[in-house]
Amino acid sequence: MASRDALVFPEALAAPLSPYLPPPASPSPSASNTTKPFTTLTFASSLDSSLSLAPGTRTALSGPLSKAMTHHLRAAHDAILVGAGTALADDPGLNCRILGVGGYGDGSEPPLHRQPRPVVVDARGRWEWCAEHGNEDGALAKVLQLARQGRGRAPWVLVGEGVAARLSAARKRVLEDAGGRVLEVGVGADGFMAWGDVLGVLGREGVGSVMIEGGAGVINALLAPRNMALVDSVIVTIAPTWLGQGGVVVSPPRRTDGEGGGAVPAARLRDVKWCPMGDDVVLCGRLGA
Amino acid sequence: MASRDALVFPEALAAPLSPYLPPPASPSPSASNTTKPFTTLTFASSLDSSLSLAPGTRTALSGPLSKAMTHHLRAAHDAILVGAGTALADDPGLNCRILGVGGYGDGSEPPLHRQPRPVVVDARGRWEWCAEHGNEDGALAKVLQLARQGRGRAPWVLVGEGVAARLSAARKRVLEDAGGRVLEVGVGADGFMAWGDVLGVLGREGVGSVMIEGGAGVINALLAPRNMALVDSVIVTIAPTWLGQGGVVVSPPRRTDGEGGGAVPAARLRDVKWCPMGDDVVLCGRLGA
Repeated sequence: MASRDALVFPEALAAPLSPYLPPPASPSPSASNTTKPFTTLTFASSLDSSLSLAPGTRTALSGPLSKAMTHHLRAAHDAILVGAGTALADDPGLNCRILGVGGYGDGSEPPLHRQPRPVVVDARGRWEWCAEHGNEDGALAKVLQLARQGRGRAPWVLVGEGVAARLSAARKRVLEDAGGRVLEVGVGADGFMAWGDVLGVLGREGVGSVMIEGGAGVINALLAPRNMALVDSVIVTIAPTWLGQGGVVVSPPRRTDGEGGGAVPAARLRDVKWCPMGDDVVLCGRLGA
Repeated sequence: MASRDALVFPEALAAPLSPYLPPPASPSPSASNTTKPFTTLTFASSLDSSLSLAPGTRTALSGPLSKAMTHHLRAAHDAILVGAGTALADDPGLNCRILGVGGYGDGSEPPLHRQPRPVVVDARGRWEWCAEHGNEDGALAKVLQLARQGRGRAPWVLVGEGVAARLSAARKRVLEDAGGRVLEVGVGADGFMAWGDVLGVLGREGVGSVMIEGGAGVINALLAPRNMALVDSVIVTIAPTWLGQGGVVVSPPRRTDGEGGGAVPAARLRDVKWCPMGDDVVLCGRLGA
């Protein structure tokens, strides 16, 4: 019997998105001579480019069709990635609920069929996916609850070099018993991982495609000139709402031109397609010249 | 002979917009018992809700179809309104260049046929539409140059009470000789006009419909709860570009709910329609519950 909360995304809405998705079950052409996965940047914002009303809060923005689209996109990627701030603030499920994927079918599908791998980028090891001593009765992150139920994969947690040793054995065991892992990635002098390194680690671990969902800090970093070449596709849902001043805003760092030093547009999409979807619109495009 | 810079907006793109435009040549139903004109709020923004890269600069955002649409909308309104900051920063033409309107036809059309009245809201009298002594050789605002050429109407300048007397007779004469006027509107203790008063003055002067184009201060004020009931239609063009941090942003004042005091979405559109237009999208809707 199909799971009660399984979602269906209409094929007529899915077809226009397909040119922006990774080629099925193969590395992207752009990754032919590297191990970088095909990388999709996706998020939902208000008209004033806010993801939520305030830091640490989750704001419902997009409608049911756009939500089903997000799960359709997740089914098309090997992994979905969020920053630690999003994991902390939202406690997201990070699984795929499209009808027919593992845990959301009639039971005849292979376990975890088409369920993407959740990846949490957490240079400083801030995200607590379970109570400190791994107590089963303690608060368990939703993503791990779903993994235990066979409705999603357990997460990979990407921490900075030397951070894994600081995590308690009990906490790591909770993660690993569910099928998750802690992976270390080098950090720069600024304490951040380079996005090329993050994607390189995922590629070496066999991830052919990754969908990066947020939060604002992650998105703004990937829209900056030094990173935008890493992004293969951008899929943005816009809801017809203004959240108002003080929200958590997607807006990349200011960009100036080399000569005059004046501000220039930070990033422009090409191969643009706008797909109305209920009250929302979905914008697909590619970054760069 | 048609003017070389006349624009054509395809009927197939115009039709979906018509439900959001004022009824032709009659006051709006909502104005049946008041003199308030039908009020359309319209602007073009980036994905990060910026109108321009920096205060006082004009940034090309939308494509040629969206630009033609703006002129199509202007032809459908009796007046177009901007704040003094926009008049100062952009020196806008504020006329309509659709093929067939006065000054942009084959010459057989009546003078100023379907040309909207430009209105500049300038409580403190900051906008200098000509050199201080009305010298014809001095810099003349583009809107007045177009009026002298028969390609647009001369502007009405709405100033605060007592401000008209401070303007030099020569400057006023330059305006009035072209067919423009200075009109006074009361200001509050904060030095601003109330938007209900501005629209009331326009209604009493026979303006049946007004399209409000900016800038950000004007737009954000009209999206605030105390003013949004004055707005009949909203038409926003969104370009697939991020201008980056530091731009001039449309985002209404933060709104909190009466009880808990928490932030709630500032404004939501209803009767929403998204119209892809070249690389841009045009969002039509109405404000309020």
